[in-house]
Amino acid sequence: MEFRFTTLGTASARPTSGRFPSAHILRVGGRSFLIDCGEGAQMLLAKNNISFARIDNIFISHLHGDHFLGLFGLLSTMELVGRVTPLHIYSPAGLQEIVETISRQLGKIKYELVFHTISCSEPTIIQSFKNLNIYAFPLNHRIETYGYLFKEKELPRNIIKEKIAEFGLTTEEIVALKRGEDVFRENSVLNSNSQPQILKVEELTYAYKPRSFAYCSDTMPFKRLSQWVEGADLLYHEATYGLDLADMAKKNGHSTASAAAQCAKEAGAGRLILGHYSSRYPNLELLLSEAREIFPQSYLSEEGAVFEIERACKHLRFAHKGK
Amino acid sequence: MEFRFTTLGTASARPTSGRFPSAHILRVGGRSFLIDCGEGAQMLLAKNNISFARIDNIFISHLHGDHFLGLFGLLSTMELVGRVTPLHIYSPAGLQEIVETISRQLGKIKYELVFHTISCSEPTIIQSFKNLNIYAFPLNHRIETYGYLFKEKELPRNIIKEKIAEFGLTTEEIVALKRGEDVFRENSVLNSNSQPQILKVEELTYAYKPRSFAYCSDTMPFKRLSQWVEGADLLYHEATYGLDLADMAKKNGHSTASAAAQCAKEAGAGRLILGHYSSRYPNLELLLSEAREIFPQSYLSEEGAVFEIERACKHLRFAHKGK
Repeated sequence: MEFRFTTLGTASARPTSGRFPSAHILRVGGRSFLIDCGEGAQMLLAKNNISFARIDNIFISHLHGDHFLGLFGLLSTMELVGRVTPLHIYSPAGLQEIVETISRQLGKIKYELVFHTISCSEPTIIQSFKNLNIYAFPLNHRIETYGYLFKEKELPRNIIKEKIAEFGLTTEEIVALKRGEDVFRENSVLNSNSQPQILKVEELTYAYKPRSFAYCSDTMPFKRLSQWVEGADLLYHEATYGLDLADMAKKNGHSTASAAAQCAKEAGAGRLILGHYSSRYPNLELLLSEAREIFPQSYLSEEGAVFEIERACKHLRFAHKGK
Repeated sequence: MEFRFTTLGTASARPTSGRFPSAHILRVGGRSFLIDCGEGAQMLLAKNNISFARIDNIFISHLHGDHFLGLFGLLSTMELVGRVTPLHIYSPAGLQEIVETISRQLGKIKYELVFHTISCSEPTIIQSFKNLNIYAFPLNHRIETYGYLFKEKELPRNIIKEKIAEFGLTTEEIVALKRGEDVFRENSVLNSNSQPQILKVEELTYAYKPRSFAYCSDTMPFKRLSQWVEGADLLYHEATYGLDLADMAKKNGHSTASAAAQCAKEAGAGRLILGHYSSRYPNLELLLSEAREIFPQSYLSEEGAVFEIERACKHLRFAHKGK
């Protein structure tokens, strides 16, 4: 099952000729989650061959223009191409009124819009799918702002195929092992030894580590954030400024690349993706090098960049290559 | 004085990966007029090095999303870069409510927004500058829609410089000639002939032909339109479809490239610029060739294309190269 993050727009409030405002796609097992929807998002989706039809859930971090002004055009185009399935929109309070005011002008949207108003003071599950939980958590910006955490659910263990023949496993034994229970075999046809036999879960099965992605934009650094995104395989964290403009970061409620890296380090994240760059940085190498000094697994987002989170086994001793 | 039209966005309702929704700049003598402001307009302005600071007047043809959804981001960025001068917005009724709803969310805009609600049934002057009149006129679309005509005012005539010495013109004579009045000289120091002398306006002066640009999007063809844009040096006319989709053009309240060309022909326009292309036409050559069959001076707009209207003298006999 894929778990793929694509950065579409990397600009902060003032877009530049090459950078669009915030918009991102997280693709998990056939679903595309649109995370923030800055102006131009629909053009960037088209440019990156991302189908609108797979987007049923849109997550808006906060109601600054560079994070939601692409929504109206996208909703309108979805109507135009004949969408019928409901569309869920998650955001702080206030968005519904804006969308409804504009929709009155743009003409009725025939598919259902389901607004989910986020309001929480700590990580809270806001949506759950078969394999995935989605959490919102508050950020520390100038206005009410939320981050989002996408976390695979714990999956049943898998039997290492060769072990089935080797041990002549029965269906009941397989079910028990997949549940994580060791199997105790007394003397039987299956067990020709004189001693009872124990079939150990950790020797006959493997399990994938649930993958997770956390999105943190826009925010000033704060202590609990690294706990809330602890262990994220991929952490997107805004990095509007470098250390040269640390004062401005504080004044405007933003983070430096170093602060983003510090958060990734404390969270024990797998990789850090930087984004939401100030137009003052035509060249981003400074931001990257400042982040890498603290957290070497830091990377720059750019329009159209793709970051895959591969499946990894929990027990490396029985590492098994995923599909 | 420059008179330059730049096409920024050429898509119709559904943008494609390479085409943005409608946005155009007409630059006349230091002023930049933004005509329609589809999503992404501010990025296209930046990309084409067009300063926001020169835009004091924005003309919205109608309230379909692909013609105004870029407005909010632009207004917001103007605020961000410290705009203080008032901004005039011309549009059919309804836009002010939308802008004010969104502005409440985006934060107060400190510069003054002056809304001009257009409502007319025939060409009407909606703004006048020293050298320019701007007219609105109704189009024939699915909702209330206006076209705009930018027309230079008749300028005073200029004296052909060499004639001043040749005829020893006095200040009074120059003033009269510039007003378009022939000068009658009796016998005098200046006139050593025995006969009275007539200094003819058309021999001693030249005048520039007032230039004009007309914008027609979106519209179905209708009879009076070509009269309203008669003699436009440059006519922008939507050409959403080719003849293969003439039925769809009619159904959706749009024009084919052929209909645009027919309008240009009947208007006696200088050049025709096609735009507002349906996403069904990845290749636009069909539209261009259908237009040129009827009106050879037809051209395709594209993102960033520039069309200059050069100054031309009224009296070719005394053609004088403008600055």
